[in-house]
Parts: sequence; C-alpha cells; structure tokens
Amino acid sequence: MSGLADRAAKLDADDPLAALRDRFDLDPEVVYLDGNSLGAPPRHVAARMADVIGRQWGRRLIRSWPEGWWDAPERVGDRIAPLVGAAPGQVVVADSTSVNIFKTLVAALRMPPLRPGDNGRDELVVDAATFPTDGYIAASAAELTGAELRPALPDELDGVLGERTAVVLLNHVDYRTGRLYDMAQATRKAHDAGARVVWDLCHSAGVLPIELDALGVDLAVGCTYKFLNGGPGAPAFVYVPHRLQEKFHQPLAGWGGHREPFAMAPEYEPAPNISRARAGTPDILSLLALEAALEVWDGVDLAEVRAKGMALTGFFAECVDELLGDRVEIVSPRDPERRGHQVSVRHPAADRLVTALAEREVIGDFRTPDVLRFGFAPLYNTYGEARRAAETLAGVLAAAG
Amino acid sequence: MSGLADRAAKLDADDPLAALRDRFDLDPEVVYLDGNSLGAPPRHVAARMADVIGRQWGRRLIRSWPEGWWDAPERVGDRIAPLVGAAPGQVVVADSTSVNIFKTLVAALRMPPLRPGDNGRDELVVDAATFPTDGYIAASAAELTGAELRPALPDELDGVLGERTAVVLLNHVDYRTGRLYDMAQATRKAHDAGARVVWDLCHSAGVLPIELDALGVDLAVGCTYKFLNGGPGAPAFVYVPHRLQEKFHQPLAGWGGHREPFAMAPEYEPAPNISRARAGTPDILSLLALEAALEVWDGVDLAEVRAKGMALTGFFAECVDELLGDRVEIVSPRDPERRGHQVSVRHPAADRLVTALAEREVIGDFRTPDVLRFGFAPLYNTYGEARRAAETLAGVLAAAG
Repeated sequence: MSGLADRAAKLDADDPLAALRDRFDLDPEVVYLDGNSLGAPPRHVAARMADVIGRQWGRRLIRSWPEGWWDAPERVGDRIAPLVGAAPGQVVVADSTSVNIFKTLVAALRMPPLRPGDNGRDELVVDAATFPTDGYIAASAAELTGAELRPALPDELDGVLGERTAVVLLNHVDYRTGRLYDMAQATRKAHDAGARVVWDLCHSAGVLPIELDALGVDLAVGCTYKFLNGGPGAPAFVYVPHRLQEKFHQPLAGWGGHREPFAMAPEYEPAPNISRARAGTPDILSLLALEAALEVWDGVDLAEVRAKGMALTGFFAECVDELLGDRVEIVSPRDPERRGHQVSVRHPAADRLVTALAEREVIGDFRTPDVLRFGFAPLYNTYGEARRAAETLAGVLAAAG
Repeated sequence: MSGLADRAAKLDADDPLAALRDRFDLDPEVVYLDGNSLGAPPRHVAARMADVIGRQWGRRLIRSWPEGWWDAPERVGDRIAPLVGAAPGQVVVADSTSVNIFKTLVAALRMPPLRPGDNGRDELVVDAATFPTDGYIAASAAELTGAELRPALPDELDGVLGERTAVVLLNHVDYRTGRLYDMAQATRKAHDAGARVVWDLCHSAGVLPIELDALGVDLAVGCTYKFLNGGPGAPAFVYVPHRLQEKFHQPLAGWGGHREPFAMAPEYEPAPNISRARAGTPDILSLLALEAALEVWDGVDLAEVRAKGMALTGFFAECVDELLGDRVEIVSPRDPERRGHQVSVRHPAADRLVTALAEREVIGDFRTPDVLRFGFAPLYNTYGEARRAAETLAGVLAAAG
C-alpha cells in the first residue's frame, strides 16, 4: 500500500498541471471522480453569475441583449473551438446535445452527396454502442427523412459502409467502457465510402487534442457539462465547418438562426454562417456560466491534459490491479491510447458499490447493469485521489465480504 | 399634468398589488416597461442561484441529480400549471419556445384525427401575424411532415378552417400590437372544424387567467422570461393535457423523455406522462432560477393581476392621449378586454425614440418598422411609472421638434 501512496505523492509533486486544481471549488473531503458526468465548478463561476443576475439582468435589463447576450452562442462557441481543433466561426453553443444531434443528422441527411451525382444514399449508420439518446434521436431523424438505420461499431465499419451510406453518427468515446475510437481512421473510412460523418464528442471534449478541421470532419456535437465543467445541463455545442455552412439546413429553424433575427421577416432565411445552427432564444444564465467556466482552460495545453489523463487512468488501473486483483474486472482498454479519461470497472453489485463509495466520500457513478465508472479530470484530479478511490473500493468490497 | 400625477398617486395608493413590487430587484431610477420582453429579476433569485452553484453543484455534485435536478422540468411545470389553468402533471419546462413549437406541431400533425375516421387532413393553419419564430418552425414542421401551410388571423378563421385543416397554431397575444385574442372562441372554431389547436402563450402567461383545461385546448407552449420573470432566455414550457399524452409523439425523442432514462435501453420508449415532452438533459441553472422566480406568484390572484394590467395600460393610453395627442398613434386595442399587458405606439422615428427614452431611464422597446412597445407588469409596475413614461415620451418628441 505504501508503495502506491509514495508513488502517488511523487506523481502529484511532479504534475505540471497540479496548480490548476486551485481554479476549482472542490470539497477537500471528497474524492470526485465523476467529471465525465458532471464537471466540478470552476471557482469564479459563482461570482460571475452574481454579476449576470444582479447587474446584467437586474440593472441593464433588456439592454444587455445587444451588450453581449445575443451573440453569446457564437462567442462561447469560439472559446470551445480551439479545444476541438476548429478555427473560429465554426462552433456555436445552443440547446442540448440531443437537440443538436437532431439538427446535425437532419441537416447531414439533407446535404448534397459527398461526391456529385452520387445520389440515392438512404442509410444512417449509428454507433451500435452509442449513448442511448443519440440512437433515439437518430431513429426519429430517420423516420422523418425516410432514411434507414443501421448499427455498427466505430472500429467495425468495414463491410457496413457502402454505396447506400449517407451519414455515419459515431461516439468518440464509449460512455460505458471509456473506449476511445480513432477519429482519423473512422472519418477516412466514412469519406472513402462517400458518406458524411457526425461525431459526438460528449466524452472527449476537454480530454485530448481533437482535430476536427484537420481531419475534415463534417459535423460534430458535444456536451459542455462533463470535462468542460459548464454546469449541470449546460448547453451543448455544434460544429459546422465553413465549407458546409451554406449546405447546412437544420430543421429547428427558429428565429435565433435567422439571417436578420430582428427584422421579424415572415420567411425564414438562414444566417450565412454558424449562427444558422441556433434555434430559439439563447439561454443566457447557462451560457454565461459556461463562458465563465471555460476560462479555466486559459493557457492550458491539451497535450499535457491528455498526458496526465492517460497517466491518471493508468495509475488508477494499476492501483485496482494491486489492491483488488480479480475481484473486479476493468473493462476500459488497457492501452492508454485507446482509452478516454475514465476507467470502468465491472462488478455484479456495481450499483450498491457506487452507493457505498459515496458514503465514504468517493464519488463515481453507475451505469446499468454492472458498471462502475471513475472519471479523471486532469485539471483537478490527483494521483492521490486515484489511489484513495481504489483503496476505498477495496475496503468496501472487503466489508461486503 | 398635475391632474395625471394626482390620479397616478391615488391609483398607486389604492393598488391591492402594490406590495408585490418589493419582491423584485428594481433600480429605483428606472421606469422599466419591457417586462413583456424580459421580466425583471425577483429579489431572491440571486441568493438561490448562489446556493445552486455553491452547494448543489459545488458540494453535492452529481448527487444533486436525484435530489431535485432530474425532475425539475415537471416540478417547475407544475408551478406554472395553475397560471395557465392546467391541473398538475400536464406542463413541463424544457428547451426554448421555438423548439417546443416544433415538438408540439409535429406531434399534433401525427395525432389521430379529432373525429375518428376523419383522415386526410393536411393543412397547418398558422397565425398570419405571428411572432416570426412560430411561422419559421411551422414551415419546417410542414416540410418534414408533408403538411401545407395556410396563414390566417386568430379572429378571421371563418372560411379558412375546413375539412383539410389538421392543426391551427395561434398566438394568444399579438407581439406587435398587444392585441389579445379570444381563446375560447378560436379553440371552439378549430374543434368545430375538426382541427386541433396549439396556442402560443408567450405574451399572455402571467397576464391573465388562462383556462387551458376548461377550454379543451389541445396543446400549448409558452415562454417564461417575459411576464413570468424567469431570466433571459429561460426555458419554455409545454402543455399536453392528460387525454392527449398517450397520443403525443414528438420528434425530439431524447433520453429525457424516455420511460426509463437510466435504463439506457437501446430503443426509445416515451414516458407515459408529460415527461415525454422533454428532450435532452435539463438545463439546471436556468430551470432553478425560473423555479425561484415563480415564487413571486405565491398567493397572487390572476384576476387581480388582470384587473391591474387593464387599468395600467388604460391609464397609460390616457396619459399618451392627453400629453401627446395625435403626435403618435396607439395601435393596441382601446378595449381593455381585447388588449394584453402592453401598449404599442406607432411613430415613424420609433427606433430613435426608444433610444432617447432609454437615455432618460424609461425602458420600452422597438419592433420594426415603426412600433414602440410599452409592457406593463402588474406585479411591479406602477401608475406613476405609466405617467412618467408618457411624460418622458412627450418631452423626447418635443425635443426632437
């Protein structure tokens, strides 16, 4: 045990990102390993929101709309853009992930084929292990557009993609196992097959360098309340690259996406830019909380974040191996290059174990039927916490006999 | 002039709702007459949000989801329900008005006909003077479902509704003129024609007693950031009466509306109740700000609110008549029964006048091309403010020559 404790102490002492933890409002008693579900609050969000409510809303009132509210979706989008490898003007924050998946899928299914003249494609391939909402929304989009659904895993696309494939919707990281897929390879395969690809970045945004522009990704959506720490249910983002914005015709054609929203024109005419991915009136309190939260990324190198994430999850797996042996099964990939920033552990009593851990101030979460998930946020989690979590899990299992 | 001032003072002294103003955080220097666009902040919202961010998010973290976050959409919906004449379990708060109009229109177009066997209805009648987003979304819903759009005013439905009419989408109050339509009459006409009706309550919720259940309204949506004071861009609500919930199949079939969201089932199965009108993960910061804001309605009688709203707008119109004569044209109905809680005034220089008023701390707003809007929120506006606004407008116009 002391070997692991010593190693954790040394790793923490050498951690180049260690100082970032102070940017978060964390309970020192709690080991919080659920940043893959709900990121912890950056310290300055509370003060910012007091200003938004007291001054911007309370004193500036309606005058705040042209003073930074109306264009918040694009401005906050541009703060996320560098985290996903997008040049400015291609990311907008609006609505939920589910709603944005609907927008992007319908828009993608409406786009002209990747290769001119290559019409008649009618299949929507959906990640077979997807977080459920993506699949539900894909089914709805398919129903409304007459497309046909076809399931496939992101690393088993050969033999699935073909001349019928119109659009492929993939998760960058499997929410259950933490498996990280090869975005470059899957994107290339989709394009080689003549299909467009939509990536769900919910579990990877803020975890590692993502290169949407460089890889020629068609569309992407992502969540901001996990590793981006935007707050519970914070609005999601949509990526539409410049080259596809003119071809992006999304069905939630609300006034927020209009070319001239305040002209109150009777006909919908989409904005010529990323704003056309907006729908209704932007949700300002949540947007500005997210904007404040994103400031913790100032000066942070995603390569360092990724390096720490791999090391943290690897060290946790090592602790689990040493302290728990074969009493649990690690279902996340052992190869750190193929793992997001979570380690999922299987046990028949996973649900009860997560509760018992929480009683001992170690917070992970449960995914049905038998998975305990431990998320590691390199901006605030420590190697000491990884060790303590494994040790506490060992104790809980021992107590359960 | 002093006659109006004396009358305003007397009206304010006799106002049974006068004490409610203290529930709001208002700048005493400012006459705020834009509560029809963005309601003023109830005083206790700031403290509530400090608790939501600091304790619920910061200390309870992910554990807050089962402790009042996940079911906030229904709980807050049930707080709105009595304001729109709905029994509990029929209102949910989620997403924006635009997104909810999309949900309700597609769901309404998918419903079985009002009269069994009466198939083949393919027309979607849309308020010809609607706030634009409703029309844009209606066009998108029509395109996706194969329906045909047909414009008509809410009080000119005769000769428009017929055997082709499937669904009618109407605004309860015209956003530009403040004209209040007869919900009972229009609903009856739609039903008599065999059509379903969807009401947009954005400018009427919080203004007067609404009787959705009693009138047999099919579906309704509404905004919470105007007279309900939920905050900028606060999430909107959807009303689906019990009798139609099983028939409500909305296209944004995200995990939030699933029968068992945390079962992570591969197939979408809608919740058996109002929850099926939810889509993605609920936006907690905004929802809980709205929940706090709705507490100002505790013990408030909507009949008194309506009486004061009619009196306030009537008194303002009187002040405008007396102080401005025919230098402006009041375009809102003179009959208080046919008027919402706003008075719209037409002037060719409306845009500049709104700016000049704001410089004198009187806040109204401008709607293209030539309308000044003055909204009166009976919970916090006073007769003195109505007089001061008219007087300031007279001064601004005189200064402009």
